Amino acid sequence: MSRLLAVDWGSTALRGALLDEEGRVLDQRAAARGMLSVGPGGFADVFEATFGDWMDVPGTRCLMAGMVGSKQGWVEAPYCACPAGLDEIVRALVAVPHESGGRPRAIGLVPGLSCESHGLPDVMRGEEVKVIGALAALGLRDAVLVLPGTHSKWATVAGGRIESFSTVMSGEFYALLSKHSILAKSLPPGEVPFDAGAFDRGVGTALDGASLMQTAFSVRTLALFERLGEAARASYLSGLVIGEELRCRPLAGAREVVLVAAPALVERFERALARRGIAVRTLGEEAAWQGLRAIDRAARASR
Amino acid sequence: MSRLLAVDWGSTALRGALLDEEGRVLDQRAAARGMLSVGPGGFADVFEATFGDWMDVPGTRCLMAGMVGSKQGWVEAPYCACPAGLDEIVRALVAVPHESGGRPRAIGLVPGLSCESHGLPDVMRGEEVKVIGALAALGLRDAVLVLPGTHSKWATVAGGRIESFSTVMSGEFYALLSKHSILAKSLPPGEVPFDAGAFDRGVGTALDGASLMQTAFSVRTLALFERLGEAARASYLSGLVIGEELRCRPLAGAREVVLVAAPALVERFERALARRGIAVRTLGEEAAWQGLRAIDRAARASR
Repeated sequence: MSRLLAVDWGSTALRGALLDEEGRVLDQRAAARGMLSVGPGGFADVFEATFGDWMDVPGTRCLMAGMVGSKQGWVEAPYCACPAGLDEIVRALVAVPHESGGRPRAIGLVPGLSCESHGLPDVMRGEEVKVIGALAALGLRDAVLVLPGTHSKWATVAGGRIESFSTVMSGEFYALLSKHSILAKSLPPGEVPFDAGAFDRGVGTALDGASLMQTAFSVRTLALFERLGEAARASYLSGLVIGEELRCRPLAGAREVVLVAAPALVERFERALARRGIAVRTLGEEAAWQGLRAIDRAARASR
Repeated sequence: MSRLLAVDWGSTALRGALLDEEGRVLDQRAAARGMLSVGPGGFADVFEATFGDWMDVPGTRCLMAGMVGSKQGWVEAPYCACPAGLDEIVRALVAVPHESGGRPRAIGLVPGLSCESHGLPDVMRGEEVKVIGALAALGLRDAVLVLPGTHSKWATVAGGRIESFSTVMSGEFYALLSKHSILAKSLPPGEVPFDAGAFDRGVGTALDGASLMQTAFSVRTLALFERLGEAARASYLSGLVIGEELRCRPLAGAREVVLVAAPALVERFERALARRGIAVRTLGEEAAWQGLRAIDRAARASR
């Protein structure tokens, strides 16, 4: 038997999927044991507590991605420089020295990627396996992908290799503005349903604007003059932020974008990208499992 | 004797200056009794405690500007719509009904200004008197002015009237990013000296960039690769934010900008504007006193 435990161990969450030889997901587990909650030296114990029984089955190996490979993680897997495809990533895999009950575990770590653009470095850790997985699932070798989130990643893939990518701190800006800024006073206290019209208005304002630092103030002034109902303001602000994200991406040449997103963000990005005339192919975040499987297969083939 | 008590009563601070007939500042006072610290019905007492003895001298009148005229303030002075110059502001002055020891006080409130741009409203309260004061001090009737701060205000003046203005939340964005974002971990814990080179680098990056949501992440990546020393990072981030502020302003036609700023911001804006080839004339925030005096004189002349 040959099984792969695919693990996405990020800053705030630990998720794993057990895959059979054909890549089918046999089982999944998640724990609120992100890297930030694990102290130095504590990774092996958390790993065993979460996945030990799966790893005890002979023929099971593990491949991990995410912040677990950072300097503050279990073992550091230095960034692999772009352009990077399966070959470059496989060459940069790092083995995790770990045993349980005297038997070594077969655990590999996927490196993050780095690139340089306009004299500035950029980095990702964990998103690269979702990109690889999305390419594999869709059979693409050339694509523009977006992985929205706290720090959205936009990747350009050519000939099957990630040529370059760019981080946009859109999720974090939304959280800062809605929780800590003067705009928080204008927003409703609890959760409210998504308001597509207000969202679209925000996207349009951002696309016509020049900076979120300027457009964001309209949440306050529209509220002040009672020109935007309280329940619509969070969706409007979300539209301003996602619209700003699209405004700052040079998408002129792109006809299609591959969106790898959690369900909550799919509708918003589809709506906003449609406004720029861009078609969307959508995949869920389980693309990570297929990416880890593709890297595992390439690693085994290269031996 | 004829004396004017000029008062700038904002959200977080209360400041006043006693001016003689020629506009000379006889005395100044400040108290940490901004509007946010004064409950409903409490304004008269705070005013008397801070300025009562000055107002007791016969021939002393008072003119106030700032958030004290907002809905949550002492008395509401509704926004005056742009274009607005001395005439429009004088017509919109609001008298504050208040007496002490049975004698009425002569207290007027300057309205804030509103304008409409690209279908969105904008507002200011308190900054309009600094604009009026700067125009009076410099003898200008046509100008572009910037009043940097938590919410920077950019005003365009034509024929002595404020045609339009725009708010940029630059000071607040800097505070959010440096205190509450992931970047906080990359910044030095205490105060560090201003690093002009790092600031200039940040301004350049922002002017070449498309959005602070994207450029801000370079604080983290430059730190990660040890390409920007810890002590330089706050100045670099400040340059990113102020550079973004200039990037989003349509200053193509402007050769000169009037800068009304606290000393801490003067050097930064002078450096950043110089990079865009724009000359700067600088005034301190005491422009508020000359603005209130100009409005007071126009009001008395119109009676």
